[in-house]
Order: sequence, then C-alpha cells, then structure tokens
Amino acid sequence: MLHMQPLCYEVTSDQQSSMLEGERNMEATTFVLFGATGDLAKRKIYPALYNLFVDQKLPQSFSLIGLGRRELSDATFQANVEQSLRDFSRREVTDPASVKAFIQAFRYSVLNIDHKEDYQKLLGMIEKREEELQLSPNRLFYLSVGPEFFETIAANIQASGLGSAKGWKRLVIEKPFGHDLQSARDLNEKLSKAFAEDEIFRIDHYLGKPIVQRLEALQQTNPVIQALWNNHYIANVQITANETVGVEERAGYYDHVGALRDMFQNHLLQLLMMTAIQLPQKSDAEKVRFKKKQVMEALEPLQKQDVSLSVIRGQYKAGKVQGKPVVGYTSEPGIAETSMNDTFIAAKLQIDDFFWRGVPFYIRTGKRMKEKSTRIVIEFKEPLKQTSLAPDDRIAPNLLVIEMSPNEGITLQLNTKDSQHNGEFKPIQIDLHPSGGELPEAYENLIHDALNGNPTFFAHWHEVELSWAWVQPILEAFEEKLVPLHSYAAGTYGPAESDELLAQDGYHWWFDSKLEQENETEEGIEYAYHTNH
Amino acid sequence: MLHMQPLCYEVTSDQQSSMLEGERNMEATTFVLFGATGDLAKRKIYPALYNLFVDQKLPQSFSLIGLGRRELSDATFQANVEQSLRDFSRREVTDPASVKAFIQAFRYSVLNIDHKEDYQKLLGMIEKREEELQLSPNRLFYLSVGPEFFETIAANIQASGLGSAKGWKRLVIEKPFGHDLQSARDLNEKLSKAFAEDEIFRIDHYLGKPIVQRLEALQQTNPVIQALWNNHYIANVQITANETVGVEERAGYYDHVGALRDMFQNHLLQLLMMTAIQLPQKSDAEKVRFKKKQVMEALEPLQKQDVSLSVIRGQYKAGKVQGKPVVGYTSEPGIAETSMNDTFIAAKLQIDDFFWRGVPFYIRTGKRMKEKSTRIVIEFKEPLKQTSLAPDDRIAPNLLVIEMSPNEGITLQLNTKDSQHNGEFKPIQIDLHPSGGELPEAYENLIHDALNGNPTFFAHWHEVELSWAWVQPILEAFEEKLVPLHSYAAGTYGPAESDELLAQDGYHWWFDSKLEQENETEEGIEYAYHTNH
Repeated sequence: MLHMQPLCYEVTSDQQSSMLEGERNMEATTFVLFGATGDLAKRKIYPALYNLFVDQKLPQSFSLIGLGRRELSDATFQANVEQSLRDFSRREVTDPASVKAFIQAFRYSVLNIDHKEDYQKLLGMIEKREEELQLSPNRLFYLSVGPEFFETIAANIQASGLGSAKGWKRLVIEKPFGHDLQSARDLNEKLSKAFAEDEIFRIDHYLGKPIVQRLEALQQTNPVIQALWNNHYIANVQITANETVGVEERAGYYDHVGALRDMFQNHLLQLLMMTAIQLPQKSDAEKVRFKKKQVMEALEPLQKQDVSLSVIRGQYKAGKVQGKPVVGYTSEPGIAETSMNDTFIAAKLQIDDFFWRGVPFYIRTGKRMKEKSTRIVIEFKEPLKQTSLAPDDRIAPNLLVIEMSPNEGITLQLNTKDSQHNGEFKPIQIDLHPSGGELPEAYENLIHDALNGNPTFFAHWHEVELSWAWVQPILEAFEEKLVPLHSYAAGTYGPAESDELLAQDGYHWWFDSKLEQENETEEGIEYAYHTNH
Repeated sequence: MLHMQPLCYEVTSDQQSSMLEGERNMEATTFVLFGATGDLAKRKIYPALYNLFVDQKLPQSFSLIGLGRRELSDATFQANVEQSLRDFSRREVTDPASVKAFIQAFRYSVLNIDHKEDYQKLLGMIEKREEELQLSPNRLFYLSVGPEFFETIAANIQASGLGSAKGWKRLVIEKPFGHDLQSARDLNEKLSKAFAEDEIFRIDHYLGKPIVQRLEALQQTNPVIQALWNNHYIANVQITANETVGVEERAGYYDHVGALRDMFQNHLLQLLMMTAIQLPQKSDAEKVRFKKKQVMEALEPLQKQDVSLSVIRGQYKAGKVQGKPVVGYTSEPGIAETSMNDTFIAAKLQIDDFFWRGVPFYIRTGKRMKEKSTRIVIEFKEPLKQTSLAPDDRIAPNLLVIEMSPNEGITLQLNTKDSQHNGEFKPIQIDLHPSGGELPEAYENLIHDALNGNPTFFAHWHEVELSWAWVQPILEAFEEKLVPLHSYAAGTYGPAESDELLAQDGYHWWFDSKLEQENETEEGIEYAYHTNH
C-alpha cells in the first residue's frame, strides 16, 4: 500500500504489438491466494504467474494478496516470491526490472482460517487496494491449502461478504476433492453455498499439460485423426502413470488414500475422458464437459464382487530402483508394518458407447516402478488378413503415443518400406509434435484460463462425482478385502497380474523395457513376472 | 574373352554377412544390352548396375554384352562404361578396385539390328561366354533403343534361337509402347510372338521411384492409412508433373506425341493407379497388377464429344522461366510455326468404384511451367460442420503430399494447437518419410527386379492397353479439333482453364506459388490467369 499510482503492468510497444487481442482485454483481477507461503505456491503458482507475466498473459491491472498463518511484511513476501522464481521458474530469471515490475503487484496478509475477523480485515484490504488501483472488484480465490480447510474458507468468504462485490468471483481449488463418493458430495454441497458451479475451478493439473491439450486439438481439428478415433480402428488404449519414487514425505496422507485415490480417481480417469471424447472443431467448455460426462456415464460400472476380475492391486516390497536398493512400502517411515494400502493399481475399463464398445482401456499407476513414465498409448487394430500370416511376416501395429513424462511428445508409429534392406517393412516413429519452442507449464495454462473464466480444462463437478461413483465399488471391495493385495518388487513394472490383465485379451503393456537380471536375485521379491517387448 | 576362370564377383566376408538371403541366390544372368553406346545406357543403366554391384544386388555370376552400331573393342567399351559411372553414378566412384571388378564382366559386340547374321554371331558369343563362365543360360535382353526397333529385335531374337536356351529369357523395353491404342496392340502382338507376357518387363521409371514404392508400402502396411484410403475421407487427388524445360533436343519426336502421349498416357496414369489401388499387406505382383487393372477398368470413359469438359489442352507461348526469357513452343528449333501440339494437359478423371466414386482425380503435366515439380497431393475432406464456421475459424484441410521432385518426401499436413499463440490452431507438416540414408535410383530398383524376375513395378500389357483405350477418345478429339488449344505463358502454371477445372468443384491446385508480376507485362501473353494459395 505504498504505491498510490494505479498499478498497471507497463507494456512496451514491442510487447504490445505481439499481444493478442484477447490478452489485452483480460479483466482487472485481484488474485487472493490462501497458502501463500506453502510449497505449491512456491514451486508452481508464482513461477506460473511470472511466466504468464513475461508472456503478456496476465491482466494489465492485477493485484495479488498472499495469505498465510505466518506474519510477513510485504517486502519479505515479495523477496520470498522472487526467490521462488529463481528456484523454480522454467525461464531463468535474468531481468531484475522484469521481476520488480512483476512483484510490485504482490501484497501479504496474515490470516487464521478460522477467524472470521481476519476475513473482514482481508475484505477491507482488498477493497482499499481495488480503490487505489482503480480495479474492478473481480476476485479469484485460490485455495492452495489442505482439503480440510476448503469448507471453512468457502463459508467464511461467503459470510464476510468477500464474494459479494459487483464484479465476478471465482474459487480455484486443488485436489483432493473428497475421499470417496459421499465425502465428495458433502464437500461440493458446502462449496455450493458460497460458489456456483461455474465459479468453481477444480484443478487437475494433468488437464493443464500442453501435450494433453495438443492431443485434444489433434483429434478435434484433423479429419484424418478423427476418422480413426473409434472401435473400428483402435484395438486398445493404455494409460500409464508410473513413478520411481516411494511415498516420500507424504506417508501419513498417502497411507490413507493409496494409488486409487491419489492418482486413479482423478488424473487417470481425466486422461481416459480426454482420450475418449470426440469433439467437433468448434467446441466450447460446455461441449467439452458435456462430452466428458457422457464418457463417464458410459463407463461400464463394476460390481463389488467382480472388482478383482478387472482391478489389480499392488504394494511394493524392497527392491532396487535404478540400481539403488530401496525398502518396501511397509518399512517406509510413517507407514505401519501391517499396512494393506495400495501403491499400484492396474485396471481394465470398458466404455459402452457407439464409439468405444469392445475397446479395452487399460490404466495403471504405481510407485517405485522401474522407470518414471506417464503416457497414453493407442494401439490400432491389425487388418484381419494379418492373422493368416506367418509370424515372421507380421508387421508391427500402428501406435499413437502421447508421452507426458519423462519427455513430452506425440508419436505415430507407422510401417515403411526399407530401401536399404531389400524392401522389407520396418516400423518408423513419426513425430506429430514438432516442437514450437518451449512449452508452458500446466499451471500457466490453468491459471491463465481461470483468470479468463475459461473452465474447459478444469474438472466439472459431474466428472468428479461420476469418477467417485465409478471408483466407489472398488474402494468398498478393497475395504472388504475382496481384492488381493499383490506384492511387487520395487523397480519392476508391478505385479505379474498386471501383465496378465492384458495378456488374457492378447495384448501387452507397450514400452515396458526388459527387466534387469539383478532384480531377480534380490531378496524380498516374492512374485514372478514376465516382461513384454 | 581373355579370362578363362569363371567370372564370379568376389564377395568379402564383410559384404557376405550384410547380404540378404535373397541376394545371395540371384540366378546367373547374361545381360544383353541393345543400345549400349546410347544416352540412356550411360546416364541410367550403367550407373544403376554399378550401384547394384556395390550394394551386392547383382548376381554373383553375371555377364553383360553391350551391342551397338559402332565398332568398339571390349577395352574401349569398358573405359566408356567407367567414364559413365564417373559422370552419372549417384555414388562417387572412388574405389578403382571396385570399378575394375565391376567392368570385367562387360563385353561388346557390334550389331546391325537388321542383320540376322549378327544375331547368330551374338548367340555364339553368349554361348561361348556362358560356357567359359559356367553360367546357366538365363538371358535378359534390354532394349535401350528407339521404339521403331522393338519389333525387329524381338523377331530376330526369336529367329536366331537367342531366346530358346534352357534357362529363362526376359525382354526389358523402354517407352513409348505404341502411339495410340491400335499401334500399341500391334506392337504387343508382335512382341508376343517372341516373348510371353510374363517375360516382358515394360519400364515406366516412375514405378521404380522409391518414393512411389514407399507410398504403396505406407498404404499397404498401415491400418491407420488404409482406413483413410477411400471416398469417405478423401476429397480429391491431384497429380502434377511439371517441368521448366521446353522441348530441348527432342523437338521432332515431341511434336508428334505431345504431353498427352509423352507423360499422361504412361507415367501419370501409372501414378493414378498406384494411388488408387488398395492392397492387402501380403501382395505379390499378380495382386498388384490385378488391382491396377481394376482401377483402369473402373475409370469412367470419356466420350469424344465431351472431352473438352474435362480435359484442358495447352501450348506454351514466350515467357520467362526463372527470370530468363524463353521463346514460345512454335518458335522452338524443329517445331513448325503452325504446330497445334500440346505441351500441357490437365484432366479430371473419375474412378467409378466403391472406394473412389465421387473423388475427382486431377492430373496435369506441362513443359515450361513455373517450377519443376512432380507430386501427388491427397486432400482430405473437411468434416461437415466446417461449413457452418465463419471463414476466420476454418482450419486448413489435412493433406498427404508425395513429392517426387524436386525433393523426395512424404508429408502429412495436420493441424495443431499453437502453445505460443493463445491456443490457436495452425497447420504443421509431418514428415512421414524419415530418411534412412540415400535412396536408390528408379533404375536400380527396376533392373534389380527384372534380374530377379519380379514384375511388380513394371507395366503389364493390360495397363498399357487400358491406358491407351482411355486416352484414345482424347487423341481423336484433339485430332478432330474438338478441344481448344489454350495458350499459356512460359513460366506460369498453364492456362487459366486448368485452374477453373478445379475451381468449378470448389478446389484449387495445391502448392502453386504466387505468380510473379513480371510475367504479366511480358508480350505474347494472351490469357488471363489467376493463382491459388
């Protein structure tokens, strides 16, 4: 509150001319950040805001108010923000003037989440700032805090009048959204009292990833891809999110949620929706979300008794990850020796609609896997005549591979005639994602969309509810011990049953590399497994 | 005949191990080359044979006998061959030992095409050589001579007993195969007396181009391409073979044939067949040629009276080609001032079968065009919903581009989301033909196939006959002046009517670059034209 002149980010004429019409018109916004001293803010939110600023993708009139439990001066807060940029920004921070211009919009206030008077104080601060800066009273409340605080904050925003200005209000919240179907419904009901559905922006950062959005665009804008996007041509879809890390510092939390809640119910089902939807070229958020809801509604529900037929549950034992011995899950600090929590899930899902009937979607995620990889593999069908060929004459199937990590890319595997080798056919990898410079981070896309009020790549309540509803029988089957908990050695691709899930349909997980021999001689490895090639 | 030991190309153990099974077993062959001192032999045949030799793709037991009108010693002939390699081989000739090993198989004999006794002498020479080298009597007769000699040579091969040894015999002939339907039939009847259809290898060197064969393989071995290969997804096909040169030294010949006979009836209809056929993965020559015949049979015939509706005929006037003024066709040396010969043809063809009904195939070829380019462009349909969009919202169509010259490549044009520009859609070019080293020349592929008796990429008599049959009403319409001869300025894309042929269907020729202004102020340009973008 030292500056009396309106805070408007200055725009050089050079930048001006490179700005798009849409950006120039972004509405003035106050960005109210709960959890401003937290890890997510430092690692993701500030760097994202800074990169948006550099790219001219923040409103010209912009104010950020950070909230936290600790007392901090504005100057200290700004210095902390600046440090987070130096530590985590994808762009190296080399221009002091640019950083200074950026952080001058940042203010800090201490706030105890339970103290109503703190929200009154916050309201006063925001209003004063809006007046000073001649900002329209548009307020974005970003909840970068634990889920246990969501309800209280929303209620207090409502009660304090923070959300009742003449401009718009938006609520951005992070996962998790509930712990099961009932708790998610309860949470949503409470949030609904303070914010309408179209004011709530539920972040699933997988939806913000540029490569996921490119996949969408690829299918949406290319008749030649659209033509292939159905059960006539697609044999199966494989969605993998494997990590090499174990539970790390999240033991207490993770042991209550497991792989199913932590990854499967949200990120992986979102990727399934994004893969399965079919969009006309001109699609708005409403259309996208309507189509995603349709996919979830068509997902064949599981019966509790049958869960074990299509869901594989695993927990890692001791093993070696990238040559380094690691302990088993139940030996991790903070995890009970008797824990029956899942660190691995593989499942076979079926979408019972006109486009996807008969195309299995295989989804898996695990910790302490052989390698870090997040990808979607679409395996195309072979022509029928292939079946009559001798094994040597068979050609590789066509694949479309959308890789999110360790690298970002979209690759099409085709076959070609090898001029160097007597005209034999050989597979080639076609890059469908020629790099056009560095890609923005997921949080940049998402924050930019939230500032613009574009909910396309946020999870609608319908999606969240339907995901929980689909997962609920699995949760119950786990609870009632109807599904075996398989062990797998750390540093492998999970339990053998995961491979068998595909093998019984005649498929295998793509791109699992050959297992190193060393794992097989480690002690603590109880299960046999085979690898795919 | 100085060497008494069997001539077998020596194979080092290194080469041996890199040789494919099929190559090792190539049958011993005597390659009898009529026209051994001619231009084609020097520019194409010897370099092709040499590169096959380097690639271990010649029979280990191989003898070549060059025939010509001039008296030459074997040594001079070998020296001439060596010089042609230095001048025209795609691989630089740097290894004297390799060249020496190669040309030791070459012998020369003078031959007067009309002298029966010369054929007897040739027979004696071949038999002696076969005995010396312990070669099986397999004889390939390559006619690198003018078409007026085809009949005589074939008859004399027959009469002399050259073709009646215990091994196989094959006849390789170059274009043109006839001047119209009747002359082609006459020629074929005469050749048939000496050679069976499966012994005749009619060269159309466009079929030998690696990129054409890759197109075939791409469609044949990839379900995702096969899926698109029909009138559901393809809007139109454009086949272009444009040259910047004029008639050059071929004035006398060219003025009798024109663009229709010189390019259209053979090369371009072959490209049409290769684009339109749909092959199962495991296809032999019989299957390929059966499918090509089916395409030609399904090609909607033109009525003489209607030719002018779908065929545009042009002749170039003076203009500028790549900045250099050039004369008009009728001012070329050797061309009559009154010549009504075509140097440009554009046509719209329809294939009336289940796959292609409703997909126009536009074909054009011309001399003295703005730029040299030979390519096939497959334009995919837009989804119906595109029609309801404002022009600004429309996205580029998907294209598959097979370029034979000036560069070789297969490119797919898709649309993607541009992360740098606010998520707008933009077209990107995807390379479907990642280079796997230098490609062989068409003649290498074709000679290798002929030596192996593989007729897949040679023109079957059915194709030749059906092509002439389809072209015949056009020839007659031209003859009877039922089709106007349009002028076009040298250095342009041909007469405006060629553009209109597509415009009336709502399409345009792809990749025609903007016309340079200079042409429009040149004198002698009588016709208006518009350009496409």
